[in-house]
Amino acid sequence: MLDDPPPFEFDVATTVRPRGDGTFDIDVDPGFTVGPKPNGGYLLATAANAAGEALASVESGHRDPIAATAHFLWAPDPGPAEVQTQVLRVGNGASQVRATVVQDGRPCVEATFTMATLTSAPSRPWWSGTTPPAVAPIEDCVRLPAAREGAPFVVSIMDRSDLRLDPAVIGFARGKPSGEADLRGWIAFADGRPVDALGLLFFIDALPPATFELAEAGWVPTLSLTAYVRARPAPGPLIVRQWAQVVDGGRFDEVCELWDATGRLVAQATQLAAIRIPEGLEPPTRP
Amino acid sequence: MLDDPPPFEFDVATTVRPRGDGTFDIDVDPGFTVGPKPNGGYLLATAANAAGEALASVESGHRDPIAATAHFLWAPDPGPAEVQTQVLRVGNGASQVRATVVQDGRPCVEATFTMATLTSAPSRPWWSGTTPPAVAPIEDCVRLPAAREGAPFVVSIMDRSDLRLDPAVIGFARGKPSGEADLRGWIAFADGRPVDALGLLFFIDALPPATFELAEAGWVPTLSLTAYVRARPAPGPLIVRQWAQVVDGGRFDEVCELWDATGRLVAQATQLAAIRIPEGLEPPTRP
Repeated sequence: MLDDPPPFEFDVATTVRPRGDGTFDIDVDPGFTVGPKPNGGYLLATAANAAGEALASVESGHRDPIAATAHFLWAPDPGPAEVQTQVLRVGNGASQVRATVVQDGRPCVEATFTMATLTSAPSRPWWSGTTPPAVAPIEDCVRLPAAREGAPFVVSIMDRSDLRLDPAVIGFARGKPSGEADLRGWIAFADGRPVDALGLLFFIDALPPATFELAEAGWVPTLSLTAYVRARPAPGPLIVRQWAQVVDGGRFDEVCELWDATGRLVAQATQLAAIRIPEGLEPPTRP
Repeated sequence: MLDDPPPFEFDVATTVRPRGDGTFDIDVDPGFTVGPKPNGGYLLATAANAAGEALASVESGHRDPIAATAHFLWAPDPGPAEVQTQVLRVGNGASQVRATVVQDGRPCVEATFTMATLTSAPSRPWWSGTTPPAVAPIEDCVRLPAAREGAPFVVSIMDRSDLRLDPAVIGFARGKPSGEADLRGWIAFADGRPVDALGLLFFIDALPPATFELAEAGWVPTLSLTAYVRARPAPGPLIVRQWAQVVDGGRFDEVCELWDATGRLVAQATQLAAIRIPEGLEPPTRP
């Protein structure tokens, strides 16, 4: 008799245990961290999992987050926490759920989800005004280690995802930022887990900040993250592009897109993050 | 003695009256509507006004929504409603507030705000990887009437904002969609009200859907809208661009950007909306 295969890391880390009153116990996983704190996309995915369970308890079949937003109030620590959910509306085509990640009585992440059921291949987009980015073949791309020489902390999520960046966009890892805040590469789960809507919420926030290619500015905490999941991806690694647009008033915005092997846009996100530009640092000139 | 000038329409329409328990009475204004229902950006601005008042009551000075998200559950009718606020966190640099628009006991809009204090000129962006779109001079642009011949309903917000669209992008208004879902033009308040952060939240959702240039698809209800306000705009009309990226599975995403007279990106938004493509309708080919 064969042993069951071990569960996928992401499924363990995003597990929610219902208390029966709309609150779910979770364990913030120490392996889904950037430095000492959990990754924002991982927390968003965990909250989305709770939102789907909350809908199941009211007999809605909507399990896929199609629009997800998190405002980050306080970074929790790895360890026990809870997700408090409130089903806001149960509809035919979509339903809405509020989910708050709370640790030690303190709200950490305020999330809202529009949930539905995603389409998958062989359906195709009706119209697209955009195309996947040009990216080097996966075998020419570079996997950054979780513990990178010169980096201020260990980025454990780099061991959970298999992220390979185009060699043209990793100047920062060699101490020579390119001046162009536009990262491209490939992403998959390191342990081979298939990618579903929850996985997309993790991947959409799993890249280094694109501003690393502009300036050494330390930690850039996300204030707010919004993701739209557009379709269930075809099997295989996804193409990912993440770029910053404007750094202004101590904040910057960043867009991330994920494309599957068929060239379909499967998820897209935008975020606003804080950045501390060192006094007197000049911006890079256009490359 | 001179009479006081009349108040600006937008200030009247977004007025919030505190009950003292974090709940604010509002009147959903019949003049800020698209057909019979209020515009989403107007509702978001009204909720943001309540969020700022809620912060004032806990002695936070954060009044500008820098990141704002609304998930739309149910379209309220013009008339009395309320905004229920919950201050989630009061910080030094930013604070967070949840605000729910409720009418007749039914939650209509679930909004979350990260609030702070915006910078304004003479400060400038530290870095920008993007530039304002090319748009025809304002005197060559076309103001669409609120009651347009052939349109299925009156768009009252067209009388509140002075929106002038580039003649290259209004094929839909002549019954000849261009096939390119990319609108550009100029926007200001019709009654001359200066544009602040709340005004930007309204303008960011005040254009016709860019998909009008793809297909006659009727009403396209917004599921979720997220806006980032980046800076207080310089005086004068703003340049606006709104474009759709992908129509897939009965939904499309749309980006909107607002630029001031100095060429500064002052607000940006993304939204996910539902769209009903008529059975058998072929997508336009690239123009």
